[in-house]
Amino acid sequence: MSLAMNAEELESFLAREFPQVVDDFRVESLSAAALTMRMAIREAHLRPGGTVSGPSMFALADVAIYLAVLSRIGPVALAVTTNCSIDFMRKPAAGCDLLAEARLLKLGRQLAVGDVLIFSEGQPEPVARAGMTYAIPPAR
Amino acid sequence: MSLAMNAEELESFLAREFPQVVDDFRVESLSAAALTMRMAIREAHLRPGGTVSGPSMFALADVAIYLAVLSRIGPVALAVTTNCSIDFMRKPAAGCDLLAEARLLKLGRQLAVGDVLIFSEGQPEPVARAGMTYAIPPAR
Amino acid sequence: MSLAMNAEELESFLAREFPQVVDDFRVESLSAAALTMRMAIREAHLRPGGTVSGPSMFALADVAIYLAVLSRIGPVALAVTTNCSIDFMRKPAAGCDLLAEARLLKLGRQLAVGDVLIFSEGQPEPVARAGMTYAIPPAR
Amino acid sequence: MSLAMNAEELESFLAREFPQVVDDFRVESLSAAALTMRMAIREAHLRPGGTVSGPSMFALADVAIYLAVLSRIGPVALAVTTNCSIDFMRKPAAGCDLLAEARLLKLGRQLAVGDVLIFSEGQPEPVARAGMTYAIPPAR
Repeated sequence: MSLAMNAEELESFLAREFPQVVDDFRVESLSAAALTMRMAIREAHLRPGGTVSGPSMFALADVAIYLAVLSRIGPVALAVTTNCSIDFMRKPAAGCDLLAEARLLKLGRQLAVGDVLIFSEGQPEPVARAGMTYAIPPAR
Repeated sequence: MSLAMNAEELESFLAREFPQVVDDFRVESLSAAALTMRMAIREAHLRPGGTVSGPSMFALADVAIYLAVLSRIGPVALAVTTNCSIDFMRKPAAGCDLLAEARLLKLGRQLAVGDVLIFSEGQPEPVARAGMTYAIPPAR
Repeated sequence: MSLAMNAEELESFLAREFPQVVDDFRVESLSAAALTMRMAIREAHLRPGGTVSGPSMFALADVAIYLAVLSRIGPVALAVTTNCSIDFMRKPAAGCDLLAEARLLKLGRQLAVGDVLIFSEGQPEPVARAGMTYAIPPAR
Repeated sequence: MSLAMNAEELESFLAREFPQVVDDFRVESLSAAALTMRMAIREAHLRPGGTVSGPSMFALADVAIYLAVLSRIGPVALAVTTNCSIDFMRKPAAGCDLLAEARLLKLGRQLAVGDVLIFSEGQPEPVARAGMTYAIPPAR
Protein backbone atom coordinates (compact mmCIF):
# COMPACT_ATOMS: atom_id res chain seq x y z
CA MET A 1 0.00 0.00 0.00
CA SER A 2 1.51 3.29 -1.06
CA LEU A 3 0.93 6.77 0.33
CA ALA A 4 -1.17 9.28 -1.60
CA MET A 5 0.21 12.23 0.39
CA ASN A 6 3.47 12.70 2.30
CA ALA A 7 3.93 14.58 5.60
CA GLU A 8 4.62 17.89 3.87
CA GLU A 9 1.53 17.62 1.69
CA LEU A 10 -0.61 16.75 4.72
CA GLU A 11 0.62 19.84 6.56
CA SER A 12 -0.05 22.04 3.52
CA PHE A 13 -3.55 20.59 3.31
CA LEU A 14 -4.08 21.38 7.00
CA ALA A 15 -2.82 24.95 6.54
CA ARG A 16 -5.18 25.49 3.62
CA GLU A 17 -8.30 23.83 5.01
CA PHE A 18 -7.96 24.35 8.75
CA PRO A 19 -6.02 27.62 9.17
CA GLN A 20 -7.40 28.09 12.70
CA VAL A 21 -5.64 25.04 14.09
CA VAL A 22 -2.65 24.51 11.82
CA ASP A 23 -0.17 26.07 14.26
CA ASP A 24 -1.09 23.48 16.86
CA PHE A 25 -0.22 20.39 14.83
CA ARG A 26 2.81 18.90 13.11
CA VAL A 27 3.29 15.53 11.44
CA GLU A 28 6.24 13.90 13.24
CA SER A 29 6.40 10.72 11.20
CA LEU A 30 4.35 8.92 8.59
CA SER A 31 4.33 5.44 7.11
CA ALA A 32 1.69 3.34 5.35
CA ALA A 33 0.78 1.86 8.72
CA ALA A 34 0.95 4.76 11.14
CA LEU A 35 1.13 8.52 11.60
CA THR A 36 2.55 10.34 14.61
CA MET A 37 1.33 13.86 15.22
CA ARG A 38 2.63 16.44 17.67
CA MET A 39 0.35 18.96 19.35
CA ALA A 40 2.12 22.06 20.61
CA ILE A 41 0.36 22.86 23.86
CA ARG A 42 -0.49 26.52 24.36
CA GLU A 43 -2.34 28.42 27.07
CA ALA A 44 -5.65 28.04 25.20
CA HIS A 45 -5.48 24.24 25.51
CA LEU A 46 -5.11 24.21 29.28
CA ARG A 47 -7.47 23.78 32.18
CA PRO A 48 -6.77 25.15 35.65
CA GLY A 49 -3.91 23.15 37.14
CA GLY A 50 -2.07 23.04 33.84
CA THR A 51 -3.71 19.95 32.41
CA VAL A 52 -4.69 19.75 28.74
CA SER A 53 -8.45 20.02 28.17
CA GLY A 54 -10.57 17.15 26.90
CA PRO A 55 -11.65 19.00 23.74
CA SER A 56 -7.98 19.64 22.90
CA MET A 57 -7.17 15.93 23.16
CA PHE A 58 -10.27 15.14 21.11
CA ALA A 59 -9.06 17.58 18.44
CA LEU A 60 -5.64 15.94 18.37
CA ALA A 61 -7.09 12.44 18.02
CA ASP A 62 -9.43 13.62 15.27
CA VAL A 63 -6.81 15.37 13.17
CA ALA A 64 -4.23 12.58 13.59
CA ILE A 65 -6.53 9.82 12.33
CA TYR A 66 -8.04 12.12 9.71
CA LEU A 67 -4.61 12.83 8.22
CA ALA A 68 -3.78 9.12 8.36
CA VAL A 69 -6.87 8.54 6.21
CA LEU A 70 -5.95 11.33 3.79
CA SER A 71 -2.38 10.02 3.51
CA ARG A 72 -3.92 7.01 1.83
CA ILE A 73 -6.83 8.41 -0.18
CA GLY A 74 -5.50 11.88 -1.03
CA PRO A 75 -6.80 15.41 -0.51
CA VAL A 76 -9.79 15.14 -2.84
CA ALA A 77 -11.91 13.16 -0.40
CA LEU A 78 -14.17 15.08 1.94
CA ALA A 79 -14.16 12.64 4.83
CA VAL A 80 -16.40 13.51 7.77
CA THR A 81 -16.01 12.26 11.35
CA THR A 82 -19.09 10.23 12.23
CA ASN A 83 -18.13 8.59 15.51
CA CYS A 84 -15.53 8.94 18.22
CA SER A 85 -15.05 6.95 21.36
CA ILE A 86 -12.36 8.33 23.63
CA ASP A 87 -11.00 7.19 26.99
CA PHE A 88 -9.22 9.71 29.17
CA MET A 89 -6.89 7.60 31.28
CA ARG A 90 -4.31 9.85 32.91
CA LYS A 91 -3.75 13.52 33.51
CA PRO A 92 -1.38 14.91 30.87
CA ALA A 93 1.90 16.23 32.23
CA ALA A 94 2.01 20.02 32.55
CA GLY A 95 4.19 21.96 30.10
CA CYS A 96 4.59 19.06 27.68
CA ASP A 97 3.59 18.64 24.06
CA LEU A 98 1.28 15.75 23.26
CA LEU A 99 2.15 13.04 20.75
CA ALA A 100 -0.57 11.02 19.03
CA GLU A 101 0.23 7.67 17.44
CA ALA A 102 -2.53 6.91 14.96
CA ARG A 103 -3.02 3.76 12.90
CA LEU A 104 -5.53 3.05 10.18
CA LEU A 105 -7.49 -0.14 10.82
CA LYS A 106 -9.90 -0.06 7.91
CA LEU A 107 -10.13 1.88 4.69
CA GLY A 108 -13.36 0.90 2.98
CA ARG A 109 -15.39 2.45 0.22
CA GLN A 110 -17.81 4.10 2.65
CA LEU A 111 -16.06 4.07 6.02
CA ALA A 112 -12.57 4.46 7.40
CA VAL A 113 -11.70 3.45 10.96
CA GLY A 114 -8.58 4.25 12.93
CA ASP A 115 -7.41 4.43 16.48
CA VAL A 116 -4.87 6.46 18.39
CA LEU A 117 -2.87 6.54 21.60
CA ILE A 118 -1.99 9.96 23.00
CA PHE A 119 1.12 10.46 25.17
CA SER A 120 2.65 13.38 27.03
CA GLU A 121 6.04 13.71 25.37
CA GLY A 122 8.60 11.57 27.15
CA GLN A 123 6.09 9.65 29.25
CA PRO A 124 5.68 5.88 28.72
CA GLU A 125 1.99 5.58 29.67
CA PRO A 126 -0.74 6.89 27.37
CA VAL A 127 -2.97 9.70 28.62
CA ALA A 128 -5.83 8.89 26.24
CA ARG A 129 -7.02 6.37 23.69
CA ALA A 130 -9.54 7.00 20.91
CA GLY A 131 -11.21 5.22 18.02
CA MET A 132 -12.67 7.25 15.17
CA THR A 133 -14.85 6.52 12.17
CA TYR A 134 -15.03 8.70 9.06
CA ALA A 135 -17.64 8.56 6.32
CA ILE A 136 -16.12 8.83 2.87
CA PRO A 137 -18.39 10.46 0.28
CA PRO A 138 -19.59 8.10 -2.49
CA ALA A 139 -18.47 10.52 -5.20
CA ARG A 140 -14.73 10.06 -4.78
CA MET B 1 -34.15 13.91 44.21
CA SER B 2 -33.31 17.52 44.92
CA LEU B 3 -30.78 19.78 43.26
CA ALA B 4 -27.53 20.63 45.01
CA MET B 5 -26.86 23.64 42.73
CA ASN B 6 -29.20 25.80 40.68
CA ALA B 7 -28.53 27.27 37.21
CA GLU B 8 -27.00 30.46 38.60
CA GLU B 9 -24.67 28.56 40.89
CA LEU B 10 -23.59 26.30 38.02
CA GLU B 11 -22.74 29.31 35.88
CA SER B 12 -20.78 30.90 38.72
CA PHE B 13 -18.88 27.66 39.16
CA LEU B 14 -18.09 27.62 35.44
CA ALA B 15 -16.90 31.23 35.53
CA ARG B 16 -14.61 30.49 38.45
CA GLU B 17 -13.19 27.14 37.34
CA PHE B 18 -13.27 27.42 33.56
CA PRO B 19 -12.82 31.13 32.78
CA GLN B 20 -11.54 30.32 29.27
CA VAL B 21 -14.84 28.90 28.10
CA VAL B 22 -17.46 30.51 30.32
CA ASP B 23 -18.53 33.03 27.67
CA ASP B 24 -19.49 30.19 25.34
CA PHE B 25 -22.00 28.48 27.62
CA ARG B 26 -25.26 29.32 29.36
CA VAL B 27 -27.65 27.09 31.32
CA GLU B 28 -31.02 27.44 29.59
CA SER B 29 -33.03 25.22 31.90
CA LEU B 30 -32.42 22.80 34.73
CA SER B 31 -34.47 20.16 36.52
CA ALA B 32 -33.60 17.08 38.54
CA ALA B 33 -33.89 15.05 35.35
CA ALA B 34 -32.34 17.23 32.67
CA LEU B 35 -30.20 20.24 31.86
CA THR B 36 -30.31 22.28 28.67
CA MET B 37 -27.21 24.25 27.78
CA ARG B 38 -26.73 26.87 25.08
CA MET B 39 -23.46 27.29 23.23
CA ALA B 40 -23.01 30.69 21.64
CA ILE B 41 -21.25 29.97 18.39
CA ARG B 42 -18.35 32.28 17.59
CA GLU B 43 -15.80 32.39 14.77
CA ALA B 44 -13.35 30.23 16.78
CA HIS B 45 -15.82 27.33 16.80
CA LEU B 46 -16.26 27.19 13.05
CA ARG B 47 -14.74 25.11 10.28
CA PRO B 48 -14.55 26.32 6.67
CA GLY B 49 -18.09 26.36 5.28
CA GLY B 50 -19.51 27.71 8.51
CA THR B 51 -20.05 24.40 10.27
CA VAL B 52 -19.28 23.99 13.97
CA SER B 53 -16.12 21.95 14.63
CA GLY B 54 -16.17 18.52 16.23
CA PRO B 55 -14.08 19.60 19.23
CA SER B 56 -16.57 22.41 19.90
CA MET B 57 -19.47 19.95 19.95
CA PHE B 58 -17.44 17.64 22.16
CA ALA B 59 -16.83 20.55 24.55
CA LEU B 60 -20.55 21.35 24.66
CA ALA B 61 -21.52 17.73 25.37
CA ASP B 62 -18.86 17.49 28.08
CA VAL B 63 -19.80 20.66 29.93
CA ALA B 64 -23.56 20.00 29.70
CA ILE B 65 -23.38 16.54 31.26
CA TYR B 66 -20.69 17.66 33.71
CA LEU B 67 -22.93 20.45 35.03
CA ALA B 68 -25.87 18.03 35.19
CA VAL B 69 -23.71 15.88 37.49
CA LEU B 70 -22.66 18.86 39.60
CA SER B 71 -26.27 20.03 39.90
CA ARG B 72 -26.83 16.87 41.89
CA ILE B 73 -23.61 16.38 43.85
CA GLY B 74 -22.53 19.99 44.35
CA PRO B 75 -19.35 21.92 43.53
CA VAL B 76 -17.11 20.10 45.97
CA ALA B 77 -16.71 17.02 43.81
CA LEU B 78 -13.81 16.95 41.39
CA ALA B 79 -15.38 14.78 38.72
CA VAL B 80 -13.17 13.82 35.78
CA THR B 81 -14.35 12.77 32.32
CA THR B 82 -13.18 9.21 31.73
CA ASN B 83 -15.03 8.21 28.55
CA CYS B 84 -16.97 9.82 25.76
CA SER B 85 -18.67 8.25 22.79
CA ILE B 86 -20.01 10.78 20.33
CA ASP B 87 -21.89 10.39 17.04
CA PHE B 88 -21.84 13.27 14.59
CA MET B 89 -25.03 12.85 12.61
CA ARG B 90 -25.76 16.03 10.71
CA LYS B 91 -23.97 19.22 9.74
CA PRO B 92 -24.92 21.99 12.20
CA ALA B 93 -26.75 24.92 10.61
CA ALA B 94 -24.53 27.94 9.95
CA GLY B 95 -25.00 31.00 12.14
CA CYS B 96 -27.01 29.17 14.80
CA ASP B 97 -26.38 28.59 18.46
CA LEU B 98 -26.29 24.98 19.61
CA LEU B 99 -28.54 23.59 22.32
CA ALA B 100 -27.57 20.50 24.31
CA GLU B 101 -30.19 18.50 26.16
CA ALA B 102 -28.40 16.44 28.79
CA ARG B 103 -29.85 13.85 31.13
CA LEU B 104 -28.22 12.02 33.98
CA LEU B 105 -28.64 8.25 33.70
CA LYS B 106 -26.59 7.10 36.66
CA LEU B 107 -25.13 8.78 39.69
CA GLY B 108 -23.12 6.20 41.59
CA ARG B 109 -20.49 6.43 44.27
CA GLN B 110 -17.64 6.03 41.78
CA LEU B 111 -19.14 6.76 38.37
CA ALA B 112 -21.72 9.10 36.84
CA VAL B 113 -23.14 8.49 33.37
CA GLY B 114 -25.17 10.84 31.24
CA ASP B 115 -26.10 11.37 27.64
CA VAL B 116 -26.92 14.35 25.48
CA LEU B 117 -28.55 15.33 22.21
CA ILE B 118 -27.22 18.45 20.49
CA PHE B 119 -29.43 20.54 18.19
CA SER B 120 -28.92 23.59 16.02
CA GLU B 121 -31.35 26.08 17.53
CA GLY B 122 -34.74 25.82 15.87
CA GLN B 123 -33.99 22.55 14.04
CA PRO B 124 -35.96 19.39 14.93
CA GLU B 125 -33.26 16.82 14.12
CA PRO B 126 -30.21 16.38 16.39
CA VAL B 127 -26.77 17.15 14.95
CA ALA B 128 -24.93 14.97 17.48
CA ARG B 129 -25.43 12.49 20.29
CA ALA B 130 -22.98 11.69 23.07
CA GLY B 131 -22.66 9.54 26.16
CA MET B 132 -20.16 10.51 28.85
CA THR B 133 -18.79 8.87 31.98
CA TYR B 134 -17.24 10.76 34.88
CA ALA B 135 -15.17 9.30 37.70
CA ILE B 136 -16.10 10.76 41.06
CA PRO B 137 -13.23 10.88 43.56
CA PRO B 138 -13.66 8.57 46.56
CA ALA B 139 -12.95 11.39 49.00
CA ARG B 140 -16.24 13.26 48.54
CA MET C 1 -42.68 9.56 8.31
CA SER C 2 -44.49 6.31 7.75
CA LEU C 3 -43.49 2.78 8.73
CA ALA C 4 -42.25 0.34 6.10
CA MET C 5 -42.84 -2.69 8.37
CA ASN C 6 -45.14 -3.23 11.34
CA ALA C 7 -44.38 -5.19 14.51
CA GLU C 8 -45.64 -8.46 13.07
CA GLU C 9 -43.59 -8.11 9.92
CA LEU C 10 -40.49 -7.32 11.97
CA GLU C 11 -40.97 -10.46 14.05
CA SER C 12 -41.47 -12.57 10.92
CA PHE C 13 -38.29 -11.09 9.49
CA LEU C 14 -36.44 -11.99 12.70
CA ALA C 15 -37.79 -15.55 12.62
CA ARG C 16 -36.66 -15.99 9.03
CA GLU C 17 -33.25 -14.35 9.22
CA PHE C 18 -32.18 -14.99 12.81
CA PRO C 19 -33.85 -18.28 13.82
CA GLN C 20 -31.27 -18.83 16.59
CA VAL C 21 -32.41 -15.85 18.61
CA VAL C 22 -36.01 -15.27 17.60
CA ASP C 23 -37.42 -16.91 20.73
CA ASP C 24 -35.61 -14.37 22.89
CA PHE C 25 -37.16 -11.24 21.41
CA ARG C 26 -40.60 -9.72 20.97
CA VAL C 27 -41.63 -6.29 19.69
CA GLU C 28 -43.68 -4.73 22.49
CA SER C 29 -44.59 -1.50 20.74
CA LEU C 30 -43.64 0.38 17.61
CA SER C 31 -44.11 3.90 16.32
CA ALA C 32 -42.32 6.04 13.76
CA ALA C 33 -40.24 7.46 16.62
CA ALA C 34 -39.53 4.49 18.85
CA LEU C 35 -39.52 0.71 19.25
CA THR C 36 -39.76 -1.19 22.50
CA MET C 37 -38.41 -4.74 22.53
CA ARG C 38 -38.74 -7.40 25.20
CA MET C 39 -36.03 -9.94 25.86
CA ALA C 40 -37.22 -13.08 27.60
CA ILE C 41 -34.40 -13.95 29.95
CA ARG C 42 -33.42 -17.62 29.99
CA GLU C 43 -30.69 -19.59 31.79
CA ALA C 44 -28.33 -19.14 28.83
CA HIS C 45 -28.35 -15.35 29.29
CA LEU C 46 -27.31 -15.41 32.93
CA ARG C 47 -24.04 -15.04 34.77
CA PRO C 48 -23.41 -16.50 38.23
CA GLY C 49 -25.53 -14.58 40.72
CA GLY C 50 -28.46 -14.40 38.33
CA THR C 51 -27.46 -11.27 36.48
CA VAL C 52 -27.88 -10.96 32.72
CA SER C 53 -24.60 -11.19 30.80
CA GLY C 54 -23.08 -8.27 28.93
CA PRO C 55 -23.25 -10.03 25.53
CA SER C 56 -26.98 -10.66 26.08
CA MET C 57 -27.60 -6.97 26.72
CA PHE C 58 -25.47 -6.12 23.71
CA ALA C 59 -27.59 -8.49 21.60
CA LEU C 60 -30.80 -6.85 22.84
CA ALA C 61 -29.56 -3.34 22.08
CA ASP C 62 -28.40 -4.43 18.63
CA VAL C 63 -31.62 -6.14 17.59
CA ALA C 64 -33.85 -3.37 19.00
CA ILE C 65 -32.16 -0.56 17.07
CA TYR C 66 -31.72 -2.78 14.00
CA LEU C 67 -35.46 -3.48 13.86
CA ALA C 68 -36.18 0.23 14.41
CA VAL C 69 -34.08 0.88 11.29
CA LEU C 70 -35.85 -1.85 9.31
CA SER C 71 -39.27 -0.54 10.38
CA ARG C 72 -38.42 2.53 8.34
CA ILE C 73 -36.48 1.19 5.37
CA GLY C 74 -38.04 -2.26 4.98
CA PRO C 75 -36.63 -5.79 4.89
CA VAL C 76 -34.72 -5.42 1.64
CA ALA C 77 -31.87 -3.50 3.19
CA LEU C 78 -28.92 -5.49 4.45
CA ALA C 79 -27.84 -3.13 7.21
CA VAL C 80 -24.68 -4.08 9.09
CA THR C 81 -23.73 -2.93 12.60
CA THR C 82 -20.53 -0.91 12.33
CA ASN C 83 -20.19 0.63 15.80
CA CYS C 84 -21.63 0.19 19.25
CA SER C 85 -20.91 2.09 22.40
CA ILE C 86 -22.57 0.63 25.47
CA ASP C 87 -22.58 1.68 29.13
CA PHE C 88 -23.44 -0.91 31.74
CA MET C 89 -24.83 1.13 34.61
CA ARG C 90 -26.64 -1.17 37.02
CA LYS C 91 -26.94 -4.88 37.68
CA PRO C 92 -30.14 -6.19 36.05
CA ALA C 93 -32.71 -7.56 38.48
CA ALA C 94 -32.70 -11.37 38.72
CA GLY C 95 -35.65 -13.24 37.19
CA CYS C 96 -36.87 -10.28 35.15
CA ASP C 97 -37.29 -9.76 31.44
CA LEU C 98 -35.43 -6.84 29.93
CA LEU C 99 -37.15 -4.06 27.99
CA ALA C 100 -35.24 -1.99 25.45
CA GLU C 101 -36.54 1.40 24.37
CA ALA C 102 -34.90 2.25 21.06
CA ARG C 103 -35.14 5.44 19.07
CA LEU C 104 -33.84 6.23 15.63
CA LEU C 105 -31.78 9.43 15.59
CA LYS C 106 -30.59 9.45 12.00
CA LEU C 107 -31.58 7.60 8.86
CA GLY C 108 -29.22 8.65 6.11
CA ARG C 109 -28.34 7.19 2.75
CA GLN C 110 -25.22 5.49 4.08
CA LEU C 111 -25.60 5.42 7.86
CA ALA C 112 -28.35 4.95 10.41
CA VAL C 113 -27.83 5.87 14.07
CA GLY C 114 -30.01 4.99 17.03
CA ASP C 115 -29.79 4.71 20.76
CA VAL C 116 -31.45 2.61 23.41
CA LEU C 117 -32.11 2.45 27.12
CA ILE C 118 -32.44 -1.03 28.65
CA PHE C 119 -34.54 -1.60 31.78
CA SER C 120 -35.29 -4.57 34.01
CA GLU C 121 -39.04 -4.87 33.70
CA GLY C 122 -40.77 -2.82 36.36
CA GLN C 123 -37.64 -0.92 37.44
CA PRO C 124 -37.44 2.85 36.90
CA GLU C 125 -33.67 3.15 36.44
CA PRO C 126 -31.97 1.93 33.25
CA VAL C 127 -29.47 -0.93 33.52
CA ALA C 128 -27.69 -0.03 30.27
CA ARG C 129 -27.48 2.56 27.53
CA ALA C 130 -26.18 2.01 24.02
CA GLY C 131 -25.69 3.89 20.77
CA MET C 132 -25.39 1.94 17.52
CA THR C 133 -24.46 2.77 13.94
CA TYR C 134 -25.47 0.70 10.92
CA ALA C 135 -24.04 0.92 7.44
CA ILE C 136 -26.72 0.75 4.77
CA PRO C 137 -25.57 -0.80 1.48
CA PRO C 138 -25.49 1.64 -1.46
CA ALA C 139 -27.57 -0.70 -3.63
CA ARG C 140 -30.90 -0.23 -1.84
CA MET D 1 5.24 -5.38 36.40
CA SER D 2 4.71 -9.00 37.29
CA LEU D 3 1.73 -11.23 36.61
CA ALA D 4 -0.68 -12.16 39.41
CA MET D 5 -2.12 -15.12 37.45
CA ASN D 6 -0.70 -17.22 34.62
CA ALA D 7 -2.61 -18.59 31.61
CA GLU D 8 -3.54 -21.81 33.38
CA GLU D 9 -4.88 -19.99 36.42
CA LEU D 10 -6.92 -17.66 34.22
CA GLU D 11 -8.51 -20.64 32.45
CA SER D 12 -9.31 -22.29 35.77
CA PHE D 13 -10.88 -19.07 36.97
CA LEU D 14 -12.98 -18.94 33.80
CA ALA D 15 -14.08 -22.56 34.22
CA ARG D 16 -15.12 -21.90 37.80
CA GLU D 17 -16.84 -18.54 37.38
CA PHE D 18 -18.19 -18.71 33.82
CA PRO D 19 -18.90 -22.40 33.16
CA GLN D 20 -21.36 -21.53 30.39
CA VAL D 21 -18.72 -20.02 28.14
CA VAL D 22 -15.47 -21.68 29.19
CA ASP D 23 -15.45 -24.12 26.28
CA ASP D 24 -15.41 -21.22 23.84
CA PHE D 25 -12.24 -19.56 25.07
CA ARG D 26 -8.57 -20.42 25.46
CA VAL D 27 -5.62 -18.25 26.48
CA GLU D 28 -3.12 -18.53 23.62
CA SER D 29 -0.39 -16.37 25.09
CA LEU D 30 0.12 -14.03 28.00
CA SER D 31 2.67 -11.43 28.97
CA ALA D 32 2.65 -8.42 31.26
CA ALA D 33 1.76 -6.28 28.25
CA ALA D 34 -0.69 -8.40 26.26
CA LEU D 35 -2.99 -11.41 26.22
CA THR D 36 -4.09 -13.35 23.15
CA MET D 37 -7.30 -15.31 23.41
CA ARG D 38 -8.74 -17.85 20.99
CA MET D 39 -12.48 -18.24 20.48
CA ALA D 40 -13.51 -21.61 19.08
CA ILE D 41 -16.36 -20.80 16.73
CA ARG D 42 -19.35 -23.09 16.99
CA GLU D 43 -22.77 -23.13 15.31
CA ALA D 44 -24.28 -21.06 18.13
CA HIS D 45 -21.96 -18.15 17.34
CA LEU D 46 -22.94 -17.90 13.69
CA ARG D 47 -25.35 -15.76 11.74
CA PRO D 48 -26.87 -16.86 8.43
CA GLY D 49 -24.11 -16.87 5.82
CA GLY D 50 -21.59 -18.30 8.27
CA THR D 51 -20.42 -15.03 9.78
CA VAL D 52 -19.77 -14.71 13.51
CA SER D 53 -22.45 -12.72 15.34
CA GLY D 54 -21.82 -9.32 16.90
CA PRO D 55 -22.65 -10.50 20.43
CA SER D 56 -20.10 -13.32 20.07
CA MET D 57 -17.38 -10.86 19.11
CA PHE D 58 -18.43 -8.61 21.97
CA ALA D 59 -18.14 -11.58 24.35
CA LEU D 60 -14.65 -12.36 23.06
CA ALA D 61 -13.47 -8.76 23.46
CA ASP D 62 -14.94 -8.61 26.96
CA VAL D 63 -13.41 -11.82 28.25
CA ALA D 64 -10.00 -11.14 26.66
CA ILE D 65 -9.56 -7.73 28.27
CA TYR D 66 -11.16 -8.92 31.51
CA LEU D 67 -8.61 -11.74 31.83
CA ALA D 68 -5.82 -9.30 30.97
CA VAL D 69 -6.96 -7.23 33.96
CA LEU D 70 -7.17 -10.27 36.24
CA SER D 71 -3.71 -11.44 35.15
CA ARG D 72 -2.44 -8.32 36.87
CA ILE D 73 -4.71 -7.90 39.89
CA GLY D 74 -5.55 -11.54 40.64
CA PRO D 75 -8.81 -13.48 41.00
CA VAL D 76 -10.03 -11.72 44.14
CA ALA D 77 -11.16 -8.61 42.35
CA LEU D 78 -14.75 -8.47 41.17
CA ALA D 79 -14.24 -6.20 38.20
CA VAL D 80 -17.37 -5.19 36.31
CA THR D 81 -17.53 -4.03 32.69
CA THR D 82 -18.82 -0.46 32.66
CA ASN D 83 -18.26 0.64 29.06
CA CYS D 84 -17.49 -0.90 25.71
CA SER D 85 -17.01 0.76 22.37
CA ILE D 86 -16.67 -1.69 19.51
CA ASP D 87 -16.15 -1.20 15.78
CA PHE D 88 -17.11 -4.01 13.44
CA MET D 89 -14.88 -3.49 10.44
CA ARG D 90 -14.91 -6.63 8.31
CA LYS D 91 -16.94 -9.80 7.99
CA PRO D 92 -15.17 -12.64 9.83
CA ALA D 93 -14.07 -15.53 7.60
CA ALA D 94 -16.39 -18.53 7.73
CA GLY D 95 -15.16 -21.65 9.50
CA CYS D 96 -12.31 -19.88 11.29
CA ASP D 97 -11.54 -19.39 14.94
CA LEU D 98 -11.19 -15.82 16.14
CA LEU D 99 -8.08 -14.51 17.87
CA ALA D 100 -8.24 -11.48 20.15
CA GLU D 101 -5.11 -9.51 20.97
CA ALA D 102 -5.80 -7.53 24.13
CA ARG D 103 -3.57 -5.00 25.83
CA LEU D 104 -4.03 -3.25 29.14
CA LEU D 105 -3.72 0.52 28.83
CA LYS D 106 -4.53 1.58 32.37
CA LEU D 107 -4.79 -0.19 35.68
CA GLY D 108 -5.94 2.33 38.25
CA ARG D 109 -7.38 2.02 41.70
CA GLN D 110 -10.95 2.46 40.45
CA LEU D 111 -10.82 1.83 36.70
CA ALA D 112 -9.01 -0.44 34.28
CA VAL D 113 -8.97 0.26 30.54
CA GLY D 114 -7.88 -2.02 27.74
CA ASP D 115 -8.34 -2.45 24.05
CA VAL D 116 -8.37 -5.35 21.65
CA LEU D 117 -8.06 -6.23 18.00
CA ILE D 118 -9.97 -9.30 16.78
CA PHE D 119 -8.75 -11.32 13.78
CA SER D 120 -10.04 -14.32 11.87
CA GLU D 121 -7.23 -16.83 12.31
CA GLY D 122 -4.70 -16.49 9.53
CA GLN D 123 -6.05 -13.20 8.19
CA PRO D 124 -3.90 -10.06 8.38
CA GLU D 125 -6.69 -7.48 8.70
CA PRO D 126 -8.67 -7.11 11.94
CA VAL D 127 -12.42 -7.85 11.86
CA ALA D 128 -13.19 -5.76 14.95
CA ARG D 129 -11.66 -3.37 17.43
CA ALA D 130 -12.93 -2.66 20.94
CA GLY D 131 -12.08 -0.59 23.99
CA MET D 132 -13.40 -1.65 27.39
CA THR D 133 -13.51 -0.11 30.85
CA TYR D 134 -13.89 -2.08 34.06
CA ALA D 135 -14.78 -0.71 37.48
CA ILE D 136 -12.69 -2.25 40.24
CA PRO D 137 -14.43 -2.46 43.60
CA PRO D 138 -12.94 -0.22 46.31
CA ALA D 139 -12.68 -3.14 48.73
CA ARG D 140 -9.86 -5.00 47.01
